[in-house]
Amino acid sequence: MLVMAFMSCAQKAQPLIDSTSEPIVEGRVYPPLFEKAISSAKHQVDAAIEAGIDVPTPKDMAGGYTHEVHKANYKYMKLAGALYSLTDDERYAQYVRDMLMIYADRYTTWPIHPTDRSYSTGRVFWQCLNDANWLVATAQGYEDILPYLSEEEEEDLEKRLFRPFADFISVENPQFFNRVHNHSTWGNAAVGMIGLVMEDEELIQRSLYGLQLSDVNDLAKDNDGGYIYENGKSEAGFFAQLDHAFSPDGYYTEGPYYQRYAMLPFMEFARALEQHRPDLKVFEYREGLLIKAVQALLYQTDAKGEFFPINDAQKGMSIKAGSVISALNIAYQVSMDPVFIDAARLQGRVDLSDSGLAVARAMERLPERPFAKPAIQLTDGQNGDQGAIGILRQGEGENEYNVIFKYAAQGLGHGHYDRLSYAIYDGDTEVLQDYGAARWVNIDQKAGGRYLPENFSWAKQTIAHNGLIMDRTSQFGGKYDQAKNEHAIPVYFNVSNPDAQCARAMDTSAYAGVTMDRTLLLLRHEAFVRPLLIDFYEVVSDDAHDYEMAYQYAEHVMTTSWEYERTHDVMGEDHGYQHLYQEAIGDLADDGYQFNWMKDKQFYTITGASQVGDAAIIARLGANDPDFNLRKDEMLIHQRKKTKSTAFLAAIESHGIYSARTEVPIHPYTAIESVSLRGYDESSLEIVITLQRGGSIAVTIDRQTGQTTITDNK
Amino acid sequence: MLVMAFMSCAQKAQPLIDSTSEPIVEGRVYPPLFEKAISSAKHQVDAAIEAGIDVPTPKDMAGGYTHEVHKANYKYMKLAGALYSLTDDERYAQYVRDMLMIYADRYTTWPIHPTDRSYSTGRVFWQCLNDANWLVATAQGYEDILPYLSEEEEEDLEKRLFRPFADFISVENPQFFNRVHNHSTWGNAAVGMIGLVMEDEELIQRSLYGLQLSDVNDLAKDNDGGYIYENGKSEAGFFAQLDHAFSPDGYYTEGPYYQRYAMLPFMEFARALEQHRPDLKVFEYREGLLIKAVQALLYQTDAKGEFFPINDAQKGMSIKAGSVISALNIAYQVSMDPVFIDAARLQGRVDLSDSGLAVARAMERLPERPFAKPAIQLTDGQNGDQGAIGILRQGEGENEYNVIFKYAAQGLGHGHYDRLSYAIYDGDTEVLQDYGAARWVNIDQKAGGRYLPENFSWAKQTIAHNGLIMDRTSQFGGKYDQAKNEHAIPVYFNVSNPDAQCARAMDTSAYAGVTMDRTLLLLRHEAFVRPLLIDFYEVVSDDAHDYEMAYQYAEHVMTTSWEYERTHDVMGEDHGYQHLYQEAIGDLADDGYQFNWMKDKQFYTITGASQVGDAAIIARLGANDPDFNLRKDEMLIHQRKKTKSTAFLAAIESHGIYSARTEVPIHPYTAIESVSLRGYDESSLEIVITLQRGGSIAVTIDRQTGQTTITDNK
Repeated sequence: MLVMAFMSCAQKAQPLIDSTSEPIVEGRVYPPLFEKAISSAKHQVDAAIEAGIDVPTPKDMAGGYTHEVHKANYKYMKLAGALYSLTDDERYAQYVRDMLMIYADRYTTWPIHPTDRSYSTGRVFWQCLNDANWLVATAQGYEDILPYLSEEEEEDLEKRLFRPFADFISVENPQFFNRVHNHSTWGNAAVGMIGLVMEDEELIQRSLYGLQLSDVNDLAKDNDGGYIYENGKSEAGFFAQLDHAFSPDGYYTEGPYYQRYAMLPFMEFARALEQHRPDLKVFEYREGLLIKAVQALLYQTDAKGEFFPINDAQKGMSIKAGSVISALNIAYQVSMDPVFIDAARLQGRVDLSDSGLAVARAMERLPERPFAKPAIQLTDGQNGDQGAIGILRQGEGENEYNVIFKYAAQGLGHGHYDRLSYAIYDGDTEVLQDYGAARWVNIDQKAGGRYLPENFSWAKQTIAHNGLIMDRTSQFGGKYDQAKNEHAIPVYFNVSNPDAQCARAMDTSAYAGVTMDRTLLLLRHEAFVRPLLIDFYEVVSDDAHDYEMAYQYAEHVMTTSWEYERTHDVMGEDHGYQHLYQEAIGDLADDGYQFNWMKDKQFYTITGASQVGDAAIIARLGANDPDFNLRKDEMLIHQRKKTKSTAFLAAIESHGIYSARTEVPIHPYTAIESVSLRGYDESSLEIVITLQRGGSIAVTIDRQTGQTTITDNK
Repeated sequence: MLVMAFMSCAQKAQPLIDSTSEPIVEGRVYPPLFEKAISSAKHQVDAAIEAGIDVPTPKDMAGGYTHEVHKANYKYMKLAGALYSLTDDERYAQYVRDMLMIYADRYTTWPIHPTDRSYSTGRVFWQCLNDANWLVATAQGYEDILPYLSEEEEEDLEKRLFRPFADFISVENPQFFNRVHNHSTWGNAAVGMIGLVMEDEELIQRSLYGLQLSDVNDLAKDNDGGYIYENGKSEAGFFAQLDHAFSPDGYYTEGPYYQRYAMLPFMEFARALEQHRPDLKVFEYREGLLIKAVQALLYQTDAKGEFFPINDAQKGMSIKAGSVISALNIAYQVSMDPVFIDAARLQGRVDLSDSGLAVARAMERLPERPFAKPAIQLTDGQNGDQGAIGILRQGEGENEYNVIFKYAAQGLGHGHYDRLSYAIYDGDTEVLQDYGAARWVNIDQKAGGRYLPENFSWAKQTIAHNGLIMDRTSQFGGKYDQAKNEHAIPVYFNVSNPDAQCARAMDTSAYAGVTMDRTLLLLRHEAFVRPLLIDFYEVVSDDAHDYEMAYQYAEHVMTTSWEYERTHDVMGEDHGYQHLYQEAIGDLADDGYQFNWMKDKQFYTITGASQVGDAAIIARLGANDPDFNLRKDEMLIHQRKKTKSTAFLAAIESHGIYSARTEVPIHPYTAIESVSLRGYDESSLEIVITLQRGGSIAVTIDRQTGQTTITDNK
């Protein structure tokens, strides 16, 4: 198995905070991005000081008044603390002190939050998670203003506010604090960060190693589908999170959408530990895991810096999110790896912190270059043995061409039933999309912004992805309990030839008695203006099944090589088919098929092999969607019925562009005449691509290593 | 009737070419944009010289080899001539001369183009129109190299090539040359421009005043639906085009999509006339009409500079199109109106001509400021008495908010049946869209890029617009012969108060026996984050009809105030309804309705008045579309059945935004509780907007003048 090396940053990880990041001193000239961070913070905090302090009695859910005020308060306290450090302007310290004093007066008088809608109801907010968010930020603001406080004030705040607060979210809420789960990471970080400031060793130990509980009976399943406690696992605390949350490559099993949020408490707490307890060498833990995790996160993005929507994920979330900026700032400060600076230029913003300053300075110092992301495989599972995702990738910047191939584990409660599926990105355009989550995050009109019923009934189902569906039934029957302990099997990930990047993976668990085996080859060749993806899908089955290969082109049909009949029937009753209208169906012959579409004013073609009896369906999403929650995206389905072992072959080609200004289409048609499968066995796979211009390209792939031989036949 | 003054540029029009535009001299430093034009031209022409001259025997249709080569040839000859003027580098002159000599050798040996598919088949191209394009460009390249040619060469070329060429597209093709039509404008310009260079007074007179024909029997209807010859009208030639093509405000009756192409021969020929025959004062003709027409064109754009898709128009065409750059360059050189420079900054490119140089210099000289477009009414019809379009407009640049209200004439063969319809643009977003044309211009996969059957069956029909449909029948029954001589009636266009811009128009011809009467008010008020559009639609009818008010929101339903049943039936058999699926239907009560949607990550709400018996339909496009030619856009329909005179009232509000990065919706819900109609008669219209925050806004509109009174009731 060939796996791209991914260790460079870990080897460079520094045991101490970067010594080039001098203390922040008023009067010196900062780099422009840091000046921007200062003025943005001043703008916000000055307005907050002007408006006056408000510490209302907790009452509302997220989005409600008291929730939003307390959330703003911790944000302002953190920023005001940083501004005080930076400017010595006592107005900022006074603001933080005065607000903390009011919290101290009121905190212990507040009962549990009246909403009582969480498995771990908070005191300031409706859930302990938000209370922990408050404490992570406030611990930083509080630390910054310590020089301003009298010893009495310090003692008073710690006794009346911080210690009770830390105890509440830990000993009083073990079901929140003592799990291996991203919620608990926030709890651990909050308790640990205030413990470090207070020099309270009991809190520090609690945060690092968890509560020493003998009874875990009250650790119940949480309400967002994630696991809380795995039987037989007694570890808890920050190091346990580090042990379990990431694969050795830094991949987070729920996917990058969740990772970008989960990284923040890891990185903030680790940074605090590095400052106060350098002896723990937390950034060296598991061979520099935290730095690798930030890099892995940054690499799981398209040309725009938006995360691949693996598992439940709202599209559009990107490396420009605040949590990713913070994580990157700390990762750079610790590792000094210039790749973070390349990515930081896309973010265009830094934190108001010494980490942010280190990044802003490096951006001035280092030469500007594109953020070059490697083709890379990221293993899944704590020990890296539960499958992986593979990213085949060519080009840089706007020209980046990405194929994200998923042969990982289930991804916990946020996972989709999409083993061996992939998605293609050509620059900014999703060529073959992953639908993402059926959720409009925080948009109240759509079920309060929560996951929608269609997230399960559509987005998680196999037919919502680019992959093979058998008998119109999702993988694992769409059952989490069957899927959660299974994973796909990487065979090879071979990108030694950048012009012929090849990955192969198998799955034997998604459909009982069936082996699925997919090979993807991303080929750069002068016959094609953009990289060409060759997709070979073998199925081994002793029983006959109905197969459907789905290609999520979303929009808009230009032309097809086959005749079809327009139809308009709902395709099924479950496994996602209940949401599909069959819009057209036609028979395919044994000479293959071509499907040409337009997306974002670009032209694409799928050229596939087919056999007599196959059919092609054009389907559209939108049926059984009572609240108009789903998009109206289209897909192509290549259907083969009542067949035992078989194989599918297709080439997906990005070949043309159109401008509405010049009205000139360039390369609107495919360069390919046909693709054919010359043969395959355990040792090799032979494919021929016949070109419209004449001649052909023969591709031979070693099935054990992914070594390819490309032969041009003129 | 109040009409915004629109005369400033005409009063400034200069009789002579701008004296500040010195001759182009090698060695001086040009402004950067002009340098860019030079290097782009050199890059293209040098490559063409390197590749060698190719003058193939004409054979192909547009897109085919010989067509594209001859098209490239005239482009290169024009650029090479300009480069020779600029650099004195004889390679460029020699290239033009050599190519012209080959054309001279071959031109008269070519028979009529073998395709024979046009009403006026060309010789070099499949239609005379393209032959005229060739001559317009080549005349300029030829003029530039005259100093390089010997007298013999000049005589030879004129005798063997240019005179026969000019005669072919005029006397030999009167059906092409002698009409009042945009094709003929090209013919007139071509013959006139070569005539000016040749100092051939016969050609010049022919181009200006047309052929003196006694028999017009062979002037047949052309193949793109436009008119060719109007009975009783015997004028032809350039001045006749000027008399008939534009309204006194410079509006072109087919709409801006066609105008941006049609402007070019007008402006190129006028510029040549200004140089050679300043006595004609062509830019002063009809009170500076040509300059006004360029301004009118630029003003019919959204915040991105894209043309409003009035009538048949492919969306995305913009002021960055080459023809608009040329027209603007000339318009600025003649008028020196700095508004053209503001627009030129958006174009980011200038022509390689003294006009282009004048613009590039002015861009350096003049202060940078936004391209501020006025709220403006543009009358339609040769005498400005055939209706108008009104553009209500607030804000500048990215914040521009545009409402384009159409109460014009039919727009000839490219017209839509959409009297009193409108479209709204909020910055880059189409809030309520006009579908545009059902055509994929030049995209071969879609019927060769020509107009599709769905252009007639859907895009032209009334239901494809934001307006009132009666009895599920398009205006004029969708019959061109009934519509072509009718126009709507402007009542007032009052933008004297920029915060309360009001327009009213009526129509009495679209539906027999019915008066339609629409008032639009674009209101800026502190209760709303963006301008609010109030839409009052009165119908006067002695007979009962079924009314449907359509709102083309395109996507995506967030929430509705009414309960609905999901359905999925094709809505009708004709007038566009055959393309619509009814996706939901629900009853409205007498307390109004609200419809909240998202488009481009922004939130919008329609708040309407309703009465018992009304229904609301959500419909989606896509039925009876055998070749997947149509988009899948959605619309809201407010239905009222079996009613005589009645009125509709709605407020369309842009109120919120969402970011997928922060995941925070801002103002996702409307600020309006309800809208109600307090009363209306011939003298006034009273509307009350009740706010969610409490209080209301009373709006009173003088129905004769559009003067408004806005009263806040706290």
